[in-house]
Amino acid sequence: VTLRAFFLDDDGLHLLDQRALPQQERWLVLRTVEDVAQAIETLAVRGAPAIGGAAAYGMVIATRTGMPLEEADARLRRTRPTAKNLFFALDAIRDAGRDAPAVLAAAQKIVRDDEAACAAMGEHGAALFADGDVVITICHTGALATCGQGTALGVIKSARAQGKNISVVALETRPLLQGARLTAWECAKEGIPCTLITDGMSAFAMKKLGVTKAIVGADRIARDGSTANKIGTYALATVAKAHGVPFYVAAPQSTFDLEIASGADIPIEERAATEVSGFATRVWNPAFDVTPPELIAAFVTERGVVT
Amino acid sequence: VTLRAFFLDDDGLHLLDQRALPQQERWLVLRTVEDVAQAIETLAVRGAPAIGGAAAYGMVIATRTGMPLEEADARLRRTRPTAKNLFFALDAIRDAGRDAPAVLAAAQKIVRDDEAACAAMGEHGAALFADGDVVITICHTGALATCGQGTALGVIKSARAQGKNISVVALETRPLLQGARLTAWECAKEGIPCTLITDGMSAFAMKKLGVTKAIVGADRIARDGSTANKIGTYALATVAKAHGVPFYVAAPQSTFDLEIASGADIPIEERAATEVSGFATRVWNPAFDVTPPELIAAFVTERGVVT
Repeated sequence: VTLRAFFLDDDGLHLLDQRALPQQERWLVLRTVEDVAQAIETLAVRGAPAIGGAAAYGMVIATRTGMPLEEADARLRRTRPTAKNLFFALDAIRDAGRDAPAVLAAAQKIVRDDEAACAAMGEHGAALFADGDVVITICHTGALATCGQGTALGVIKSARAQGKNISVVALETRPLLQGARLTAWECAKEGIPCTLITDGMSAFAMKKLGVTKAIVGADRIARDGSTANKIGTYALATVAKAHGVPFYVAAPQSTFDLEIASGADIPIEERAATEVSGFATRVWNPAFDVTPPELIAAFVTERGVVT
Repeated sequence: VTLRAFFLDDDGLHLLDQRALPQQERWLVLRTVEDVAQAIETLAVRGAPAIGGAAAYGMVIATRTGMPLEEADARLRRTRPTAKNLFFALDAIRDAGRDAPAVLAAAQKIVRDDEAACAAMGEHGAALFADGDVVITICHTGALATCGQGTALGVIKSARAQGKNISVVALETRPLLQGARLTAWECAKEGIPCTLITDGMSAFAMKKLGVTKAIVGADRIARDGSTANKIGTYALATVAKAHGVPFYVAAPQSTFDLEIASGADIPIEERAATEVSGFATRVWNPAFDVTPPELIAAFVTERGVVT
């Protein structure tokens, strides 16, 4: 099975609309920078590395449509504030120059590098997992969240490819249910045994489902190791620590932000209250949270496992 | 505001259908034991003390319809396994005898006693809270969950009645969203400031919303203090402990089960997978979990605060 979140051809950026999954596999064709920006904002594409790749191709579309590159860059930077990979990709494109072939080459390199990083993370990370592990995860970190096989879910795939029988416990990940809609779906496609639970079940699952490890992706990692990731990650890490379950973060170098010293400085996106409640109620809806480094057993990157 | 979950008159058991809230305030009239049993099973009425009261009135309906009391008792005992109050109420009715006036008197006593227990829990528990406290809670523990003002939410009401400015952070409580549907609604009716969050936000909320205390209800409390309550309670208690937030349990004596030594012996209801996912996915859906006593700062009962 080779799942991909998007691909570029002469017609435009073809993007699997993740808002419609798993009920529908609907492909969008994006032909303007605004199309790409809105696809990122509305989560038609999500997952930090996939956002980076889609934004890079958005810049290619700017060269095709004649939109000034500064304007396209500014628009794409305004889409989602937390994922470092978005800014990493746009910085790389900016450094590549202004002519269309250079932008295309830089964008293709971003996508290829992320695919290779996923494979390398899988190799390095697989060594952390043993036959029979029951691995809990949050949100969706598979192929659709990256330009390759995935980050955290990619590591699980690599470990299974080594013959280790590993099963997944997926948090549904409210409010937008990326775990229920995407992780459960991708696991089914890949033949990975997966049990879906609500986010509040994490602690009881540690005891009752025999969870042995936890692994998640990341949207931005500060210099001290503080990790911004999907809201609920910090609670999961806290619960894992209390149960002696090692908690791993799988992320490519493009997720690390060396300019940010600690978690308090990571910008956290707050999304609409209506994602949580259809009722007239005061709601707090941060899309991400920050997990402090003392709760993280190791980072799995394409260069190896860092503790 | 005086909210009530149900009341009995000559026509039958009038019950506010909690499945329809907050969109609709729909009253059902239950005239057979089977009606009452199904209302409990399908969560038209829920909350451990309210289940006890509704089942007690179900036995009154048995005397009216001529259903043998043993049969009515057996049917009602099969509805939901975890809440101790259900069995407490049915035991009390059984002990009261077999004639209709005795059953009615015993049922009315169960309801009156629970109303008084709520008031007493409020008095005792209010002393634990200070002006300005931000209190996190799960599920729904207000008037509709009891025969009085509520357990955990009742304590908050009593503390506010003493002039303490206390606000609530309500976990939405997946899968059935009792927090979003009922706690947010009852807080709005009562003028209690309430911020709704998803279950996974608990840890980040401790840091970012300034949560100072946690209080929850209970469905069954074992001799060692292990507390079965709505799934997600154990994760919340774990997260509270990690943040130095005292975690209280408010429950009447009818929730304590002295015949059960520890949490492992409490029967935990597992409900349908479709409550979690509409998709064809393997799901684990326990309705309750068990919080170990070391995570509980104190129990608030009608007899006082027990540490």
